[in-house]
Amino acid sequence: MTGEAEAAETAADSGRRKRSGGRAGMKSRGASAIEQMPWRIPLNPDRPTEPLDADGVQRIHRGAMKILSEIGIEFLNPEALEIMRRAGCLINGTNVRMDEAFVMEMLGHAPSQFTITPRNPEREIVIGGKHMVFVNVSSPPNSWDLERGKRSGDFASFQEFIKLTQYFNCIHVAGGYPVEPIDIHASVRHLDCLQEKLVVTDKVVHAYSLGAERVEDVMEMVRIAGGLSHSEFDEKPRMYTNINSVSPLKHDHPMLDGAMRLARRGQPVVITPFTLAGAMAPVTMAGAVALSLAEALAAVALLQYINPGCPVAIGTFTSNVDMKSGAPAFGTPEYMRATQMTGQLVRFYGLPMRSSGVCAANVPDGQSMWETSNSLWAAVQSGTNMVYHAAGWLEGGLIASPEKFVMDCEVLQMIQRYFEEATFATTEEDIALDAIREVGPNGHYFGCAHTQARYQTAFYQPFASDWRNYEAWALDGSTWTAERAHRIYKQILAEFEPPEMDHNAREELARFVARRKQEGGAPTDF
Amino acid sequence: MTGEAEAAETAADSGRRKRSGGRAGMKSRGASAIEQMPWRIPLNPDRPTEPLDADGVQRIHRGAMKILSEIGIEFLNPEALEIMRRAGCLINGTNVRMDEAFVMEMLGHAPSQFTITPRNPEREIVIGGKHMVFVNVSSPPNSWDLERGKRSGDFASFQEFIKLTQYFNCIHVAGGYPVEPIDIHASVRHLDCLQEKLVVTDKVVHAYSLGAERVEDVMEMVRIAGGLSHSEFDEKPRMYTNINSVSPLKHDHPMLDGAMRLARRGQPVVITPFTLAGAMAPVTMAGAVALSLAEALAAVALLQYINPGCPVAIGTFTSNVDMKSGAPAFGTPEYMRATQMTGQLVRFYGLPMRSSGVCAANVPDGQSMWETSNSLWAAVQSGTNMVYHAAGWLEGGLIASPEKFVMDCEVLQMIQRYFEEATFATTEEDIALDAIREVGPNGHYFGCAHTQARYQTAFYQPFASDWRNYEAWALDGSTWTAERAHRIYKQILAEFEPPEMDHNAREELARFVARRKQEGGAPTDF
Repeated sequence: MTGEAEAAETAADSGRRKRSGGRAGMKSRGASAIEQMPWRIPLNPDRPTEPLDADGVQRIHRGAMKILSEIGIEFLNPEALEIMRRAGCLINGTNVRMDEAFVMEMLGHAPSQFTITPRNPEREIVIGGKHMVFVNVSSPPNSWDLERGKRSGDFASFQEFIKLTQYFNCIHVAGGYPVEPIDIHASVRHLDCLQEKLVVTDKVVHAYSLGAERVEDVMEMVRIAGGLSHSEFDEKPRMYTNINSVSPLKHDHPMLDGAMRLARRGQPVVITPFTLAGAMAPVTMAGAVALSLAEALAAVALLQYINPGCPVAIGTFTSNVDMKSGAPAFGTPEYMRATQMTGQLVRFYGLPMRSSGVCAANVPDGQSMWETSNSLWAAVQSGTNMVYHAAGWLEGGLIASPEKFVMDCEVLQMIQRYFEEATFATTEEDIALDAIREVGPNGHYFGCAHTQARYQTAFYQPFASDWRNYEAWALDGSTWTAERAHRIYKQILAEFEPPEMDHNAREELARFVARRKQEGGAPTDF
Repeated sequence: MTGEAEAAETAADSGRRKRSGGRAGMKSRGASAIEQMPWRIPLNPDRPTEPLDADGVQRIHRGAMKILSEIGIEFLNPEALEIMRRAGCLINGTNVRMDEAFVMEMLGHAPSQFTITPRNPEREIVIGGKHMVFVNVSSPPNSWDLERGKRSGDFASFQEFIKLTQYFNCIHVAGGYPVEPIDIHASVRHLDCLQEKLVVTDKVVHAYSLGAERVEDVMEMVRIAGGLSHSEFDEKPRMYTNINSVSPLKHDHPMLDGAMRLARRGQPVVITPFTLAGAMAPVTMAGAVALSLAEALAAVALLQYINPGCPVAIGTFTSNVDMKSGAPAFGTPEYMRATQMTGQLVRFYGLPMRSSGVCAANVPDGQSMWETSNSLWAAVQSGTNMVYHAAGWLEGGLIASPEKFVMDCEVLQMIQRYFEEATFATTEEDIALDAIREVGPNGHYFGCAHTQARYQTAFYQPFASDWRNYEAWALDGSTWTAERAHRIYKQILAEFEPPEMDHNAREELARFVARRKQEGGAPTDF
C-alpha cells in the first residue's frame, strides 16, 4: 500500500479516532427519518456544454425550418388544421406546412420563463432561465421492487409513489402517474389518480392529454383543490400538460386537443417529441434533433397563434436504439449530445426546455446509475429547466421502482448541492489562509476554529450512500445500495404524513369525483 | 400506460419484430469475446466547466502564492532543501518559502504537453492539451470480487488486474500496482511487479517513488524492456512517477528523491497532493484547492530548477470527509467543484492536469457508479488530461475489484464515444432531410438507405450494459450489472494473450530481476 491508499487509510483512521472520541456538536443520523435538503428551486450556475458552434446551430435550425416548410407535419385534429389554415399555413389533407417567418413570429410571443402555482403557493415552481426542477417518474405500466419483483401497475403502488413524490424535497412536481394503476377502469382512472395526487401532495400536478373530458376534469379538480374561482384559475399557470408527438412528423388528435384546451386557459404545455434515432428518426443525432425540434415548433406555433404569450416549453426525448435489437437505449453518449444540442437550439428559440432522467436498465444496479447519471448530467449540461422521470425510472420507462426513486433522489440532491455557490466560493474566508497558517504542517483540520464553525453544513450529507469502511459496512449487514434504498422507501411510507389541505376544498373535490364517476367518467374509445 | 411509456413499448415491439425477422447485416454479439472500441488517445472537445470567474481564479492563485511565500512548504529532504537554498528560496529548518516571481519563472520552463513512449511505440500517450488518457486503479491494499469477497492483495490478483489493464483499449496506462501484492517481500516486490507489467502489458508504466533503489531499478527495467540504450532512454519520456505530498504543507523524503531522479532524466513527474477538506485541508473547497496547488507548485518549482523544461503535471485529489465519521468521501458535489476549480488554475499555470475516477462505495453497486460517474464527468469537465484510478477502484482506494474494473471501462468507453464528432456533427448528411422526406409520417427509419449505410457504427455498443427488456433479461438469468461484469472478467482472463515482446529484451529483463533479487533488492526501512 503506497501513496494515495495509505493516505486514505490514515484519513479513515483519523476519522475513526475522531468518531470514537465523540464530538458533542456532531449531528447523529436520526434512527427513524432520513435527513434531506430543504425544498428550493435550484438555479444552475454553469455555462451549458455546447457541442455546436454558431454554424451548427444554424444548420440544425435551417433543417427544422425546411422540415416545417417543405415536408410538413401531420395534425390529426380537424380543429387544429382549421386554425392553422386561418393562420395562413399550407394545408394538404392533414399535412401542415409553415414558413420560417410565421414560426419565428409565433415564437416571439412565447415567454422564456413562467411559474406554475399549485394549491400550496410555497410549492410554486419556475420553469425557464437558470431554474431547474425535477419531476417524478411518469407513466410506466409496471412497477418493480426488491420484494415483489415486476408486476403490473396498480393503485396501491401508485399511492406509494405519490407519497415518495411528496416526501422528497428534491422532487418539485408530481408529474404524470408514477405508475399506471390498471386496476382502475380507464374511464375513471384520472379521477381517482388526480384526487389522490391533489390530496396527498401539495406540489404541481399534470393532466394527461387523453381526451377532452379528462383534461377538463383535471383542470376543474386543480381549481377545486386550490380553492380557486374560475377566473383565479385562469389568471396564471396552475398545472400543465405534456404532449408527445407521434414521430415521425405527426401530432395526434387527443394530444393536440389537450394542448389547445390548456393553452386557451393560459396553462403550460410541454411538447416532447419521442424521436428515437434509427427508429422514429434519422440514425444521425443532428437529424433526430432537427426532426424533434420541427415537431415541437409546429405545436408551439399552433398554441401561440391560439393564445399569444401562453406558456410553452420544448422537451427532448431524443435517444438511440440498440441497432442489434431495436430496443431503445437511454443515457448513452448519443443521448447526451442530443440533449445538449437540443438545449442550444431551445435557447436559440428563447423557450424553456425539458429533458429526462432515464435508463434502459431493468433493475436499480450499476448500469441503471451510470445511465441515469449520464441523463441527469446531460440535463445539467444542456441547461434543462424541467427534468422528467428524474426519480424512479427503469427499463426504458416500462418500470417504476421505489428503490430507484430513492437512489435517484440522492443524485438529485447532489446536483442541487453542486449548484450551491458554497461549493466554489472564493471569499477570503473560503481561501482560509488563517486556518492554513494556524494548522501548519503538523496538525489536522478537524479541530480548528475554521472547521468548527462550518463542519455541520460544509459538505453534502448523503442518506442512501454508505461512506463507512468495508468492515463497518459488512458488520452492519453488507447491504448493497438497492437494499438500503428499499429500507429507506419502507421507512418513508411508514412515517409519511400528508400535507395540510383545506377541509372544504377536500370535501368539494370528493364530491366532484363522486359526481363524475356517477356520470360514467370519460369515454374510453381513444 | 400513456405517452412516453407507450411510445417506448411501441419502439421495443418494433425492435423485437426486427430482431425476429433477422437482418442479415446485423452483427451478432460474439459468444466468446467482448467487442470493444479500438485503442486511441481521446481528445476532449468540450469547453471546460468553469465555476470560477477571472477574479476567482486570481483569488485562489494569490492564496497559493501566499501559502508559498508566507507560510512555506516543508521539504523533508536535505538535497531538495539545499537546491532550493541555491535557487534563492528562504529556508528555515525544513521550511521552504518562495515568492511568486520565482514560482512563475519556474512554471515558464514547464511544457504544457508531453508524450510518454512505452516499449511498444504504438502505445505512446500524450499528456496535455485536449488529450485525455485513463489509468488503471493503483495501490489498493485489498482486492474484492463477487466470488471471494474482500481479501489482502496478492500477486495472483495483481496478475489478473494487469491482464485487464492490458486487455481494455480504453485503459492507456498501466499505472501503479492495481493491487498491492503483500505476499511478495517489499524488498523485491517492485522487481516482480514491474517485470510482470513490462511483459504482460506494452503500455506506459510508472515507478513508485519509494526509495532510490526502487526508482533506479524501475527506470533500468523500462530501459531494458524497451531494448533502449541509456541515451535512448534519456532522450524522451519512457515512464513516469506520481508523488503525493503529505498534506498539509509537506513533501517527504522518498517522494522528493524519486521526483528529482526522474526529473534529471527527463522522465515525467505527476504531483498530486491529497488534500481532504476538513481533515488535511481547510473545510472550504477553495481553501483546500489553494493548499493543494501550493504544495504541487512547490515541487514543480524544485523540479524545474533542477532540470528546466522537464515534464511535470499537477494532480488533484481534493475531496471532502464525512463530517459525521471523518471517513473520506469521493465523487461528491464538493469533489466535482474542487476538480473543476483545480482545472481552471492548472490551465492558468499552463500545465497538464491529473484527476481520478473514485468512489467511497464498498461494492460495485449503484452508489459506486454514481460516485464514479460524478468523478469521471468532473474529470471531463475540468479538462483533466490523465485520469488515475479510472477503472477498478472501491472503498476510497482500499479495494481493487475486477467487476468494478469492467463496469468502469464501459463508462470510459462511453466517454470516448461522447468525445467523437459523429455524435454532434451537423453536415447535410447528418441533418438527413432526404431521409426525413423519404420516410415521411408513416414509415420508420430501420429500413431506409440513410440508416442502412450507417447502422453498424451509428451508436455506442455496450459490452456490460444489458439493453434487453425485462422479460428477455429475466429469462437469461436476471443478472445484475456486477454479475455480468464478473462473467466478462473471467472470460477476459480465460482468453488473454500477452502482447508480443522481443525475446532478448525479455531475457535481459529476467536476468536483471534475478541479479537484483540476489543482491537483496531494495532496503525496506523507508
